[in-house]
Amino acid sequence: MIDLNADLGEGFGRWRLTDDERLLSVVTSANVACGFHAGDAATMRRVCELAAERGVRIGAQVSYRDLAGFGRRAMDVPPAELAAEVAYQIGALEVFARAAGSRVSYVKPHGALYNRVVHDERQAEAVVDGVLLADAALPVLGLPGSRFLKVAEKAGLPVVTEAFADRAYTDEGTLVPRGEDGAVITEPEAVVGRSVGLARSGTVTARSGREIPVRARSLCLHGDTPGAVDLARRVRAELEGAGVRVEAFA
Amino acid sequence: MIDLNADLGEGFGRWRLTDDERLLSVVTSANVACGFHAGDAATMRRVCELAAERGVRIGAQVSYRDLAGFGRRAMDVPPAELAAEVAYQIGALEVFARAAGSRVSYVKPHGALYNRVVHDERQAEAVVDGVLLADAALPVLGLPGSRFLKVAEKAGLPVVTEAFADRAYTDEGTLVPRGEDGAVITEPEAVVGRSVGLARSGTVTARSGREIPVRARSLCLHGDTPGAVDLARRVRAELEGAGVRVEAFA
Amino acid sequence: MIDLNADLGEGFGRWRLTDDERLLSVVTSANVACGFHAGDAATMRRVCELAAERGVRIGAQVSYRDLAGFGRRAMDVPPAELAAEVAYQIGALEVFARAAGSRVSYVKPHGALYNRVVHDERQAEAVVDGVLLADAALPVLGLPGSRFLKVAEKAGLPVVTEAFADRAYTDEGTLVPRGEDGAVITEPEAVVGRSVGLARSGTVTARSGREIPVRARSLCLHGDTPGAVDLARRVRAELEGAGVRVEAFA
Amino acid sequence: MIDLNADLGEGFGRWRLTDDERLLSVVTSANVACGFHAGDAATMRRVCELAAERGVRIGAQVSYRDLAGFGRRAMDVPPAELAAEVAYQIGALEVFARAAGSRVSYVKPHGALYNRVVHDERQAEAVVDGVLLADAALPVLGLPGSRFLKVAEKAGLPVVTEAFADRAYTDEGTLVPRGEDGAVITEPEAVVGRSVGLARSGTVTARSGREIPVRARSLCLHGDTPGAVDLARRVRAELEGAGVRVEAFA
Repeated sequence: MIDLNADLGEGFGRWRLTDDERLLSVVTSANVACGFHAGDAATMRRVCELAAERGVRIGAQVSYRDLAGFGRRAMDVPPAELAAEVAYQIGALEVFARAAGSRVSYVKPHGALYNRVVHDERQAEAVVDGVLLADAALPVLGLPGSRFLKVAEKAGLPVVTEAFADRAYTDEGTLVPRGEDGAVITEPEAVVGRSVGLARSGTVTARSGREIPVRARSLCLHGDTPGAVDLARRVRAELEGAGVRVEAFA
Repeated sequence: MIDLNADLGEGFGRWRLTDDERLLSVVTSANVACGFHAGDAATMRRVCELAAERGVRIGAQVSYRDLAGFGRRAMDVPPAELAAEVAYQIGALEVFARAAGSRVSYVKPHGALYNRVVHDERQAEAVVDGVLLADAALPVLGLPGSRFLKVAEKAGLPVVTEAFADRAYTDEGTLVPRGEDGAVITEPEAVVGRSVGLARSGTVTARSGREIPVRARSLCLHGDTPGAVDLARRVRAELEGAGVRVEAFA
Repeated sequence: MIDLNADLGEGFGRWRLTDDERLLSVVTSANVACGFHAGDAATMRRVCELAAERGVRIGAQVSYRDLAGFGRRAMDVPPAELAAEVAYQIGALEVFARAAGSRVSYVKPHGALYNRVVHDERQAEAVVDGVLLADAALPVLGLPGSRFLKVAEKAGLPVVTEAFADRAYTDEGTLVPRGEDGAVITEPEAVVGRSVGLARSGTVTARSGREIPVRARSLCLHGDTPGAVDLARRVRAELEGAGVRVEAFA
Repeated sequence: MIDLNADLGEGFGRWRLTDDERLLSVVTSANVACGFHAGDAATMRRVCELAAERGVRIGAQVSYRDLAGFGRRAMDVPPAELAAEVAYQIGALEVFARAAGSRVSYVKPHGALYNRVVHDERQAEAVVDGVLLADAALPVLGLPGSRFLKVAEKAGLPVVTEAFADRAYTDEGTLVPRGEDGAVITEPEAVVGRSVGLARSGTVTARSGREIPVRARSLCLHGDTPGAVDLARRVRAELEGAGVRVEAFA
């Protein structure tokens, strides 16, 4: 059983990025941008309506306040500010999720914040504090072994681990940084094969060639490049063909 | 019986404007800025905590998205965008109100949006739509006779009327526009006297000298000028001295 | 002789809109977004470099401060603020134009501001004041007969008139508002034909079927829809085939 | 001979922070906010006019794009973006400086960017690239011994060193970080005494009690706290009383 999540609603005003409609026919969990790195209010509303119609779970994709940098630039935000900004984003999305007859069902940090809370204890705690402000029972989605998930678990939040079929792994099970050679896997065949391996056996071939265990309840798919949605569709089809149940986490 | 409302939390980041702590010891309803004309997330959180502690009712002061103009510049925002932006702001504030053990209990438009929906039917409907998205039972605060309150009433929202003791009125009971002579009443004695008249007899002396009826369940006080909080305190003391019960609307 | 202008650099951060490279091989004047409705600093720099390389004239496309609305929502900005904001945008672009070995050679208002200054005298004066702050000899591009060009002329600024081959005209030579039926002409053949007519005879067929005079030194092409750049290329080719010299205004 | 610099124009829209008028009667160099951490266009214009009238030198106080954090949160901005953003800010200010009959005469990074380029080589280079884009002969103001001044010097930019009379120094001549005990000196008498020492003998008493050399052509004064302008006035009076010529750097 595996969940498929992807970032959605990442336009802003006149600009569009993700093919929200088509992605929503593939994924089981939608990480909806909440206005800080992308995602105007009207887009948030529309994505929530579409997600609710299709039974796709709605998650808050929270970010640093950085439209100009799309939330991809690490920022030294003081913890109290960061916690409040995380809660603000969750609350804003909740209105649209509820209006559509659904709920915000999980929280996933975006971009530079996602990477930062893998190791930065203070920011990890701030994000967790922000989630707790909004709802003390809200699951968080993150990297296995990250400070973020450890802090969240300690705070009593349900944690959901995820893996990336299109990213190279080190022998230790961490992601090879984007800057390095071979960090991103673009060959569709490979992405599909790794997806099935991650879902069925909980393993993936590391960059070294070793087979390593990666514990993941969800697979993160991407929808912001040409061909991405087609690949996502294929991943889902192959997973189902291999007998994997594609289903949102509880 | 009268409610006293004032705008709070109107700083942003490093900037402060309103003396939130002192105002919260005077008013019964706090119009909290929600980040679109003022009000960062950390300030929203703090104001909600203080308001909840003191039993002051929390309202969402929703605005056009315009930090540079403090929401004071009318904007031709398409209705669907405006409705979504209003709902977004209410949702964001709701997180902090709930975390503080309270709730968002009403909505009041700010600045240019407040003035616009007095007569602009489409924007009035958009604001009401935004409120309905968030909560179909949320009271709205506005000017008696405004399109906004009419549209809200028709949509089934509870409406609360307000008056301004420091603004001149026409014989028809509308506010004399700010640009005109004598539009703003600055003499403290006069403001106090008008407050008591509005609360006790539901009347005020119009610019013409005629005594006119003004139906208001709430008085709007200001807190963003020197001496404003002292005047607000005095208004409350005189109201109570005159036997008026100062209490939030139900 | 005709100039061809188009809006460029209308992305922001992660988002792209216009195909700047290809458009720059078609137009003679580039209306570069300056950061208020679109156009981050790095994009402004790149577009200026490309324009300078290809001998395309650089103009400042100035806008209301409104990223969320792409500058398409009219705003009641006080004249002193608007003038300063116009000057700010011109100055910011000038850095990149000069660094590329060129200059800001004209100013064209964008979107809602463009439409507003057709008839709003105060905002037209404010935009002209902003241009004068930056450079008292900078040409402005606008609609023939607009308040904007009249005010600019009176202030001693060189004025350049433009026409739209893909918009319907009234008998009075004004544009049919976008909301109305047939306001936008999408048939490529028609757009090409009207372009040649405007450039060669200074006339266009109005919506009523009457042939009307439209005095225009520049034609505005669009580059933000699929197929737009191909159509722009074709317009240029047909103009040149018809013996029209395509050249920037002096 | 010493220059006195201070941050000015650090309001935004409705918000004010610095007492620009009074500060401009004390300092010889005005670090004007350029819109990225503070400083709307109308304020920039007004400060430039006042500075020009009083013969105060105008400098561009460039910052990360961060109104919500007042530029006080370090950001991992990619060098190409940062360089372009620095140039953008300088260009925007230049319009107002020229319109007032003056020029942008130097550049000083603000807040977190100031601190970052003390040691971060890549961001130091990016800021220098941004300055070079705008004007290859523009002096930069910074901390003696910083990477920023080293990179600037290597690139051929004139460099101007500054000292802080209200900050504690280590034996190595670097500033004691703000978080540490005694980092900020608030006692007016001490600030005045240290100012005179820095200007006359080029030395200051380090936190250890040792007298250390600090090479500074400019002293940075602060104007954003109560009493700050009075203290600045006193520093200037005492410097002049001690025979120090208070004059902008050439």
